[in-house]
Amino acid sequence: MRALHFSENGLRLSQIEVPNAEKGEALIRVRMAGICSTDLEIVRGYLNFRGVIGHEFVGTVEDSSNRDLVGKRVVGEINLGCGVCAWCTRKNERHCQQRRVLGILGKDGCFAEFITLPLRNLYRVPDRLEDRIACFVEPVAACYQIIEQLTFMPHDRVAVLGDGKLGILAAQVIAHWVPGTVLVGHHERKLKVAQACGVKIAREDELELKSYDTVVEATGSPGGMEKAIGLVRPQGTIVLKSTYHGDLLFDAAPLVINEIHLIGSRCGPFGPAIAALAGKDLCVEPLIDATYPLDQAEDAFIKAKEPEALKVLIDCK
Amino acid sequence: MRALHFSENGLRLSQIEVPNAEKGEALIRVRMAGICSTDLEIVRGYLNFRGVIGHEFVGTVEDSSNRDLVGKRVVGEINLGCGVCAWCTRKNERHCQQRRVLGILGKDGCFAEFITLPLRNLYRVPDRLEDRIACFVEPVAACYQIIEQLTFMPHDRVAVLGDGKLGILAAQVIAHWVPGTVLVGHHERKLKVAQACGVKIAREDELELKSYDTVVEATGSPGGMEKAIGLVRPQGTIVLKSTYHGDLLFDAAPLVINEIHLIGSRCGPFGPAIAALAGKDLCVEPLIDATYPLDQAEDAFIKAKEPEALKVLIDCK
Repeated sequence: MRALHFSENGLRLSQIEVPNAEKGEALIRVRMAGICSTDLEIVRGYLNFRGVIGHEFVGTVEDSSNRDLVGKRVVGEINLGCGVCAWCTRKNERHCQQRRVLGILGKDGCFAEFITLPLRNLYRVPDRLEDRIACFVEPVAACYQIIEQLTFMPHDRVAVLGDGKLGILAAQVIAHWVPGTVLVGHHERKLKVAQACGVKIAREDELELKSYDTVVEATGSPGGMEKAIGLVRPQGTIVLKSTYHGDLLFDAAPLVINEIHLIGSRCGPFGPAIAALAGKDLCVEPLIDATYPLDQAEDAFIKAKEPEALKVLIDCK
Repeated sequence: MRALHFSENGLRLSQIEVPNAEKGEALIRVRMAGICSTDLEIVRGYLNFRGVIGHEFVGTVEDSSNRDLVGKRVVGEINLGCGVCAWCTRKNERHCQQRRVLGILGKDGCFAEFITLPLRNLYRVPDRLEDRIACFVEPVAACYQIIEQLTFMPHDRVAVLGDGKLGILAAQVIAHWVPGTVLVGHHERKLKVAQACGVKIAREDELELKSYDTVVEATGSPGGMEKAIGLVRPQGTIVLKSTYHGDLLFDAAPLVINEIHLIGSRCGPFGPAIAALAGKDLCVEPLIDATYPLDQAEDAFIKAKEPEALKVLIDCK
């Protein structure tokens, strides 16, 4: 099969074997997949991953011990726990210390014709959820993780820093709880897309310092932390949603003096993400910049790396 | 009166005017005061404070609009809010943005014969609580702030990093909730004192990585953060109790990947601290290394700066 393979030789569309489904796994024919910033980080050397990359996808079950699933469209949680440790038995395999992660850690990913995933990772996709929208389930789930971790009140002051894909999605999700949520960024085009999706935009210099109950740091840049510390109120919360690659340098004294909460946030629950996207409660269509066939996956990455780019999809059919 | 004054010329025992009590303030004759690590940081330039330093004290009310207090022994909360902002009206003047802080920010401190403090900041000291022990109320209150901020369960795994004064006190306070709390440090003598106080000691190399529900970072050194991140379990909590002076550099990726909570922790409630010290629920006597008269306050600071030093008191009577 064709697959986008990353190794010391770089990113190459390669011909490799169709993966064998392990016990409890389904074989899935990938329909459509999305490029995430983490994929771009991996190509820069993050986590030392070698193999087929990609973890945002929608596919059709090709083979499965659960015959009912065959032929059905699915999306899948990307963390594969060991199944026996305390984390896995408490249904929190996202934190299993032996976990593999689709296209990120020890498991071939979805920029390919086929992948395998455990049946327990799969979620049926409602018919009304198109492939190109279903590719957003995984990143939207990551935004719902913020809702799982914090308690919001409707009149909270919430700022999301970073006008990338994740920032725009997070601002939309949080706005369901806190309508006044603002997005802060400095990419003209991305901000226009966000605005077209109904996201409230604020210029950085308009923001009152030390006044935000919650600041979501989704810039992915080291300066984002200092900005977040400047904006959050005493005893307020900063959510770290960026994948930091390399060391972070900042003045930590305000964290102590102002008793700030900082909380890391990674993968989230698929259920609410599927429901929100199927119910058209979120606007994601304008975030799609381009769709490339799998054969042009290398070009898709070149496009996704552009500073003003948002979501780039790969059609794997 | 005599007072230990800090300015660009350094730390000098000086002759200054007795302070005037403002409206709502009492005039207090300082009996005994303790040197805190924050005082040592101030002398190194932290917060650019100029004036009389010191914030841990017990004194006798010399003059007050509340005549019942005159002649009584008191300790005092160190944050002086503006009294009218949203923080102050919600009884959280520790976070008032216009606050002054005794001996730290805009308010002369307690290494002096007299100080003034608002009546609302004062707490009566029970007769059975001796002066030398009452000096610990303020730092012990800071440890009870951790109890206010988190929820502990008896079988949690808790590690306190740093065998300084604050670490030893924090380990004792938390051990009331979590008996298995361990203290980690590398100063032979300090660890012996901690052990004499009944604190459980653990060597750093015995600690299981990624296994602690809560790690209290009280080393005051930049490396403490990396150690705390290494020890805390996924979705566990790191309490930042150190005053960091200068920038902190660390790999923040695990904060996100392991969804770690980080929470800054500063001043705390005096009530439980007084009760615990008066009830002899905490062991602090062995932490006292020396007591100097106010006339030798400069020498007291030299002693307090020794790497193996714990609490140094100044007798201001």
